[in-house]
Amino acid sequence: MRLVNTTLATMDGDQPYGLIENGTVVIDKATIAWVGPEADLPAEFADHEQQDCGGRLLTPAFIDCHTHIVHGGHRAIEFEMRLEGASYEEVARAGGGIVSTVKATRAASVDDLLASALPRVDALLAEGVSLIEVKSGYGLDRETELAMLRAARAIETVRPVRIRTTFLGAHAAPQEYKGRDDAYLEEVCLPTLEAAHAAGLVDAVDGFCEGIAFTPEQISRVFDKAQELGLPVKLHAEQLSNIGGTKLAARYGALSADHVEYANEEDVQALADAGTVAVLLPGAFYTLRETQLPPISAFRKHHVPMALATDSNPGTSPMTSLLLVMNMACTLFRMTPAETLAGVTCNAAMALSMQDTGMIRSGLRADLALWNVEHPAELAYRVGTNLLHQRIFNGNT
Amino acid sequence: MRLVNTTLATMDGDQPYGLIENGTVVIDKATIAWVGPEADLPAEFADHEQQDCGGRLLTPAFIDCHTHIVHGGHRAIEFEMRLEGASYEEVARAGGGIVSTVKATRAASVDDLLASALPRVDALLAEGVSLIEVKSGYGLDRETELAMLRAARAIETVRPVRIRTTFLGAHAAPQEYKGRDDAYLEEVCLPTLEAAHAAGLVDAVDGFCEGIAFTPEQISRVFDKAQELGLPVKLHAEQLSNIGGTKLAARYGALSADHVEYANEEDVQALADAGTVAVLLPGAFYTLRETQLPPISAFRKHHVPMALATDSNPGTSPMTSLLLVMNMACTLFRMTPAETLAGVTCNAAMALSMQDTGMIRSGLRADLALWNVEHPAELAYRVGTNLLHQRIFNGNT
Ligand SMILES: [Zn+2]
Ligand SMILES: [Zn+2]
Repeated sequence: MRLVNTTLATMDGDQPYGLIENGTVVIDKATIAWVGPEADLPAEFADHEQQDCGGRLLTPAFIDCHTHIVHGGHRAIEFEMRLEGASYEEVARAGGGIVSTVKATRAASVDDLLASALPRVDALLAEGVSLIEVKSGYGLDRETELAMLRAARAIETVRPVRIRTTFLGAHAAPQEYKGRDDAYLEEVCLPTLEAAHAAGLVDAVDGFCEGIAFTPEQISRVFDKAQELGLPVKLHAEQLSNIGGTKLAARYGALSADHVEYANEEDVQALADAGTVAVLLPGAFYTLRETQLPPISAFRKHHVPMALATDSNPGTSPMTSLLLVMNMACTLFRMTPAETLAGVTCNAAMALSMQDTGMIRSGLRADLALWNVEHPAELAYRVGTNLLHQRIFNGNT
Repeated sequence: MRLVNTTLATMDGDQPYGLIENGTVVIDKATIAWVGPEADLPAEFADHEQQDCGGRLLTPAFIDCHTHIVHGGHRAIEFEMRLEGASYEEVARAGGGIVSTVKATRAASVDDLLASALPRVDALLAEGVSLIEVKSGYGLDRETELAMLRAARAIETVRPVRIRTTFLGAHAAPQEYKGRDDAYLEEVCLPTLEAAHAAGLVDAVDGFCEGIAFTPEQISRVFDKAQELGLPVKLHAEQLSNIGGTKLAARYGALSADHVEYANEEDVQALADAGTVAVLLPGAFYTLRETQLPPISAFRKHHVPMALATDSNPGTSPMTSLLLVMNMACTLFRMTPAETLAGVTCNAAMALSMQDTGMIRSGLRADLALWNVEHPAELAYRVGTNLLHQRIFNGNT
């Protein structure tokens, strides 16, 4: 199959967007066989069946590289209580916060978790997403952490999308281990990681390194176990304060350090040296009304790739739109539209170590998105409009 | 037809949401014939054909009471230039700003304007909107102002939605009248208002009262003409500074004063006395990264109804989602979810003086929205997710 009459934002090469006007893409089964200007098409592809793209913009399919999209319940009532003036304590007494999500997640079966995640997954797919990273971390016991990962993997069996699973046992200590973080890590988190890995359910290992969660020393125990199992790591780091998570992530050669609002230039240099991607999450920044901006100019200066993701989760980012994430990254972080498109395509692929996607390049998977826009900057410019015309997944139009 | 197995947020009465659990709504042709708990259903309606709503939440259809959704072109390239570091002057030299929208709008035919507005209209409809206010104000000459209003009215002929048109000739002086605002008003704006009214194209008259636009004295000349023609008025007031627009609007008994971030308590008292609605526009607040919050607590204290709208426009609010507006009103303005639902239903109807819609009440139009949510607070809680299950317009399911 050959896509014709389209502008390509290949996200390949040194130019912003890697634009090719009057481009064409040849798809051979599930793979991109050729990419370039229509005028340069090799004769061998000239007879392929054509799809006229009506002059629309073609980009790589989007990638959401940081989500907690599998979870039980929602936190709308707590959201409302807070806006009606309830204090954190009153919300906590009413069973709010992460505790309520852990409770709802533990009460759900794998099928329940899958069913409740699907509307959120469908919202992402409707905006051209082909690959979603999904974290555990609301079970915080062996059975439920495994159930979350199984529900995440099951998404691929019922929807045309790829899933990467990340074990986030070190998200928080559950109520029954309150004040005994180390015991939770030793007795539950690490053995569950081993079990999940043995069951083939883990693509990467993550943690929440923060004053209100785990220390760098505690996270390093989790990362040591990951290394022992041969699993790559990533980290929720420097979201609310700077306690050394970013440097820790770099030391372990992490795929990504995520949030990183409070990272300083030394931290950024460490990420650059380690080849670690910075995953920025404007939805959480917005929802929390954070004012500390991530060090965008330092990322630019040190050539740290910036990825963007929804952080889709019931507490701090109940969101399901990567287009809106792109707009928020422009509006709130002053990133450029080209940077935001890289953030949800090539750089997001890098944050997941997926070399087969994220660009329109010969040899990569034919995961593409066709958009009702005249110029690629429109993707980030519009607010709350779904601009997708067509999603191509695994070569299927 | 009778809708059963639903929770009703009627937006009627003194309780937030006007909730009725296990409710039922009887629709007779285009009108709501009866509303109440299923258990209280009068015998006469028992035989009506039923639709099972699956326990979903039913609300009044949404109303977008402030838009500039009809216009030529877009400003994505200017958005990108600014983020790439261009100064206001450089953007202006490149033909950016309102000038570019006026140019593109003047170059468009009525059919062009309609065609380019429809994707934005469709995005609103997909989220349960039944009534949209559309302003002129990017023509700034007689022919194009009339073309904008005709394009706006034409939307009703091709989509199941109602349109209210507002004449906004006093949006800005065009280039050819630069520095001659008074001459523009006398020679173009006022005669065009008369012509548009004579053509039956005007439901209300609006202006932009601001340091960078028109003074209260200039606006009062437009309002005098509106009064003479028997047309209600509304005003873009106190968006960037306080120059007395809100008090002016109140003095003329305006339907609404819009934006009003810089209104003070005296202004709010004036709105209360005049029965004028405050229309808040969080999309523009967000896009402009405004920090001056509208005086929400004063509106509450003085019982000024707060409506919410997209302000959909190419420059300061290129947005098309009232659900996102609700979330932004909570997150940025700290309004409650119940206030935001009133903002896009009953209070939005009031801002347009449309007494036949905005609540689920017997005798009103059967314009309703059925949502995939468990609790009404979810509408404002989720970010960038379209939660609509079904829109009912004029009794048509
Ligand atoms: Zn996260
Ligand atoms: Zn406006």
